[in-house]
Amino acid sequence: MTNSEKKIKVGILGASGYTGAEAMRLLLRHPDVEISLLTADRKAGQPVEEVYPHLGGYGLPDMVSVEEADWSGVDVVFCGLPHGTTQEIIATLPDAVKVVDMSADFRLDDPATYAEWYGHEHRALDLQQQAVYGLTELYREKIKSARLVACPGCYPTATLLALVPLVAAGQVDARDLVIDAKSGVTGAGRGLKQNTLFSEAGEGLSPYGIASHRHAPEIEQEVAKAAGCPTADIRVNFVPHLIPMSRGELITSHVRLTGGATAADLKETLAKTYADEPFIRILKGKDIPQTQMVRGSNNCVINVFEDRIPGRAIVIAVIDNLVKGSSGQAVQNMNLMFSLRETCGLEQVALFP
Amino acid sequence: MTNSEKKIKVGILGASGYTGAEAMRLLLRHPDVEISLLTADRKAGQPVEEVYPHLGGYGLPDMVSVEEADWSGVDVVFCGLPHGTTQEIIATLPDAVKVVDMSADFRLDDPATYAEWYGHEHRALDLQQQAVYGLTELYREKIKSARLVACPGCYPTATLLALVPLVAAGQVDARDLVIDAKSGVTGAGRGLKQNTLFSEAGEGLSPYGIASHRHAPEIEQEVAKAAGCPTADIRVNFVPHLIPMSRGELITSHVRLTGGATAADLKETLAKTYADEPFIRILKGKDIPQTQMVRGSNNCVINVFEDRIPGRAIVIAVIDNLVKGSSGQAVQNMNLMFSLRETCGLEQVALFP
Amino acid sequence: MTNSEKKIKVGILGASGYTGAEAMRLLLRHPDVEISLLTADRKAGQPVEEVYPHLGGYGLPDMVSVEEADWSGVDVVFCGLPHGTTQEIIATLPDAVKVVDMSADFRLDDPATYAEWYGHEHRALDLQQQAVYGLTELYREKIKSARLVACPGCYPTATLLALVPLVAAGQVDARDLVIDAKSGVTGAGRGLKQNTLFSEAGEGLSPYGIASHRHAPEIEQEVAKAAGCPTADIRVNFVPHLIPMSRGELITSHVRLTGGATAADLKETLAKTYADEPFIRILKGKDIPQTQMVRGSNNCVINVFEDRIPGRAIVIAVIDNLVKGSSGQAVQNMNLMFSLRETCGLEQVALFP
Amino acid sequence: MTNSEKKIKVGILGASGYTGAEAMRLLLRHPDVEISLLTADRKAGQPVEEVYPHLGGYGLPDMVSVEEADWSGVDVVFCGLPHGTTQEIIATLPDAVKVVDMSADFRLDDPATYAEWYGHEHRALDLQQQAVYGLTELYREKIKSARLVACPGCYPTATLLALVPLVAAGQVDARDLVIDAKSGVTGAGRGLKQNTLFSEAGEGLSPYGIASHRHAPEIEQEVAKAAGCPTADIRVNFVPHLIPMSRGELITSHVRLTGGATAADLKETLAKTYADEPFIRILKGKDIPQTQMVRGSNNCVINVFEDRIPGRAIVIAVIDNLVKGSSGQAVQNMNLMFSLRETCGLEQVALFP
Repeated sequence: MTNSEKKIKVGILGASGYTGAEAMRLLLRHPDVEISLLTADRKAGQPVEEVYPHLGGYGLPDMVSVEEADWSGVDVVFCGLPHGTTQEIIATLPDAVKVVDMSADFRLDDPATYAEWYGHEHRALDLQQQAVYGLTELYREKIKSARLVACPGCYPTATLLALVPLVAAGQVDARDLVIDAKSGVTGAGRGLKQNTLFSEAGEGLSPYGIASHRHAPEIEQEVAKAAGCPTADIRVNFVPHLIPMSRGELITSHVRLTGGATAADLKETLAKTYADEPFIRILKGKDIPQTQMVRGSNNCVINVFEDRIPGRAIVIAVIDNLVKGSSGQAVQNMNLMFSLRETCGLEQVALFP
Repeated sequence: MTNSEKKIKVGILGASGYTGAEAMRLLLRHPDVEISLLTADRKAGQPVEEVYPHLGGYGLPDMVSVEEADWSGVDVVFCGLPHGTTQEIIATLPDAVKVVDMSADFRLDDPATYAEWYGHEHRALDLQQQAVYGLTELYREKIKSARLVACPGCYPTATLLALVPLVAAGQVDARDLVIDAKSGVTGAGRGLKQNTLFSEAGEGLSPYGIASHRHAPEIEQEVAKAAGCPTADIRVNFVPHLIPMSRGELITSHVRLTGGATAADLKETLAKTYADEPFIRILKGKDIPQTQMVRGSNNCVINVFEDRIPGRAIVIAVIDNLVKGSSGQAVQNMNLMFSLRETCGLEQVALFP
Repeated sequence: MTNSEKKIKVGILGASGYTGAEAMRLLLRHPDVEISLLTADRKAGQPVEEVYPHLGGYGLPDMVSVEEADWSGVDVVFCGLPHGTTQEIIATLPDAVKVVDMSADFRLDDPATYAEWYGHEHRALDLQQQAVYGLTELYREKIKSARLVACPGCYPTATLLALVPLVAAGQVDARDLVIDAKSGVTGAGRGLKQNTLFSEAGEGLSPYGIASHRHAPEIEQEVAKAAGCPTADIRVNFVPHLIPMSRGELITSHVRLTGGATAADLKETLAKTYADEPFIRILKGKDIPQTQMVRGSNNCVINVFEDRIPGRAIVIAVIDNLVKGSSGQAVQNMNLMFSLRETCGLEQVALFP
Repeated sequence: MTNSEKKIKVGILGASGYTGAEAMRLLLRHPDVEISLLTADRKAGQPVEEVYPHLGGYGLPDMVSVEEADWSGVDVVFCGLPHGTTQEIIATLPDAVKVVDMSADFRLDDPATYAEWYGHEHRALDLQQQAVYGLTELYREKIKSARLVACPGCYPTATLLALVPLVAAGQVDARDLVIDAKSGVTGAGRGLKQNTLFSEAGEGLSPYGIASHRHAPEIEQEVAKAAGCPTADIRVNFVPHLIPMSRGELITSHVRLTGGATAADLKETLAKTYADEPFIRILKGKDIPQTQMVRGSNNCVINVFEDRIPGRAIVIAVIDNLVKGSSGQAVQNMNLMFSLRETCGLEQVALFP
């Protein structure tokens, strides 16, 4: 597909945020795609290079406000808007425009749970019902025919890829999941906050959102599905930590084994589940996942370890929060929605060192 | 005590390592101490400023080899030598020389456990029996009269300060402790290793020593004492992670509540236990411990949080691994051993930003 | 002086900024000082530990607004307010209150130059005339009797300590000074700016204020005095760079030798000039100044190197921008103003690693 | 070219170093290339994923020693060996194997200069005479027909791209170039050195190789060619600094204008020279080059600024030292040597944040 007219026309909503920038980085090199629309309300009227100097020189369109956006000819939008805003804007899009949503608006099935965690009633319930949860490896078939895909949060992506097969196999106790999560600072976005200043976040480490992070109910929803029980039955321990690095996310899941399973059994389950997956790699032996293995790539690397406490194991997964944890998985989903090769535009080797 | 002749004469063994340098930083400003001997085998004959340029200009003695060391007049040594070497050298010291050991050689009570984890029989068993475990707040009285104090590892220090009072109070299950630990890179020492190069450790995150780190049996030993059970009954989950920062350590302990205790009960226990401690601070409300609060200081900051899983809680503690986790606690112990004010030389306010 | 009633009462204006925090860190351990007033308009009413968690637990007063401040009993204020604001507030202080100003308001002698670089007429010209430029080593005698000391900018401090003696000695060409400067991110303050976010400033490097930074005219003013010529005759090349570290500043000055001077001559001039200075260290041989040598300390480390271009040399100086470059030098000046030992409260050894 | 048999077979010598790893990252995604041989003497026998975990899973061949290497079928080698070793090994290669050398061995034309700076006589003088200096944009035509291309050092690449056109145009004084250079830590390689440990290089900044770095004579050689004078006539000020970041390099050149040229004239010269270059971008207006603009990409970004000193200007250039400064430029040269599209395999967008 080399003819520009036949390329898929992509719009990126909220292009001034980090997920927007990362979508641009990936889509600029996607052979079947053309970026034809960029919105960013506060940056409307600015050329991309003023907002992201590293993206200058590629002929990208200037930023416009959502109100000014011309949707004609746009085949699909990547949405990196704040939650709440997202649902209102997506509701106004022409039906012909497919949506890959990177916000939190359509991830939670249950409107009451959404309202509890996001502080307001959902304002696009019909869209929410159409939305397919975009954890690609687990929902591939549904994604292919979806109009609206709700890409998972970064933490749920790495957590669920590691745990869902184990819960589904009855090998770990879904009611005793201790998920100790660590993320680089880009996870907090480009908004100006004191705690993400270089001199505050650098050379230090802090937990945040302890047992109160919005990704907890999202994890619980999917763990419950895997366990075949009501979501209300599942509560997970989820403690994220802010790490002094820009990109990368590591999930250390401390799990209780059930049904006589061993750490080796868990590893075998994961290895079988993901045997043919292009982006998921189960390490050999006792090799340890590190975020350095996936920086800038769409890969997820996992391994399982024995615990010293009998009857427990440790499952570790890493992703780049901006790629597999956000814009990369979004491109992967778009590829499915448009019947493209799933790895298209996502074949970057990790950048190390 | 202003007369130099009356000052306590300190020798630092293994002065070229990070714990040695940190001991120098603290002791140079200790009003009752004079650094009179520095040993560093591979750097023997070098002035301090060649080994540590930031310590030039203070009139410190040149490095000598242990063999050349003149012990006459030395009142106390701080020992930052590698394990194994330590026991052999300390065994040769004159009896009059007190020892504050920052190595791992005398931390484990049980010779069989030592041999299992360190790969050789202990070679100074009599000294090991005299040694007092130097977790100051818990063993203060014994330390006062000890000749040989075995300062705890950095991870055990933060972990045990947070958990021992809770185990002792019967409020948490000593057999279900999940200790997810994070440390800055200085914890790995100054030796040349590929994984601690800037370009390898920077901008990334990795677990290491998963369920196999030597600090695990040390933690188990002290938890067992608090629980009043044989050490063999206690196995902890202990997973340390290497964080891209130089200093700082944060312990996220995921605990199971017992005896009907709540997170608030745990906090109250800690608050009471440490009410009069100069270096331990239990935060108010939901304030979150961060390593930034303690950088360069001898403080330990702790708080307790509710978990989403019923019957569980989260206990978080931070220290500077080179101060309270090593050389600072060593100075604190020396102060006790010489009947000095316990905070002497340790009153630095944390360096932030 | 151990009686609290006799301690010097200090107020810190703009205590929520980094220079304010650093002044607190230093003054909390100053034996002759008591911090009795903290102002911070936007944080008024908050306890210090909400603004700076690492400063909790020391019994500091809550933040108040400048309007609410009670000046009675305050002997001296450290002023860390933004420029412009500073002059207005200092003008309202009781005459009995001495002022150590860390802002830019009183550094430039010439009102026209001030107006040109700061965009408005100076609003406290009488105060400006009284102000003594607070580069301690060069203006010590004047500072002792000053009521208002204008502490230099961080860049001018390191630059002038290295260059003024050389210009004064006629050994370098004052009209051909190429000053390539590098600073950590705290130099940009605690205000929220996109370019100082961790994910923007980290893992990267950029110049800023190229040939247009406000520290250029300040350097020119003092170089001109040393050269004995009108300020207008001196123009320096000054290019600062933002470095991905929190603290530290390094000045690489590329100078043209005059009068047959050699690099060795320059070094001798500096060594003689600073022979008795407690905070200035001229390195031996070809030892290289590094910011790691001075982190957290009030020291300035300098050395001189031969250039490959005949007739040129390279002078390198490092400081901690928040200590000698700001709050530390301010404390040093206060000590002089109150006839205290000049090093009081400033004896911290550098924090490395 | 999709048939594997027709792909260019590449060997990488010294594959365990950072330039080797970066060559693998780029070549793994080059459509016309197959990596068929990897040598690494100390890692011989190891699979790539043990040496570089992020490169596991791509089916790369195991590392072998140079002695074991089978050159049959190898079309071209990328050489990332240490200097000295390089010339000996390359001399043994079959004539049919083209060589893209990333070491320093063939960069200097003059054997006496090589001997002076590298401490031994050159041992492959005939090869040195064949070698073409691989600064692609300046030597493109010669590179096309070369068998052996000596890729420039990272510092010379950025410096010369910015300065050679200006010297050639007679707009700057080739005898008064002050080149203040800054590089990330990968520039020091993967060898174990104390000063590149995370805890030593992090949170700090230091110059090194002041007026004695081996890239100085390389720069002088090419500046002299541009100036049309003997190399011995040109001496440059060259001071590199180690910056706490992994990748990236920024050159701040402080230049004296000649022939009445202005900063605007310099910019115009550069803009014209590089108008059609795919990897060189001259920024608009006063936009400032930052290393963040080029991380992971083969781009070089340049701009020119007025100085405050009359008759001077400032030229700033950034590259990723491992891409355009090494392995990326090497791939660019290989493309020319094999008549491939010059940008092939090098179209990565910079990774930011």
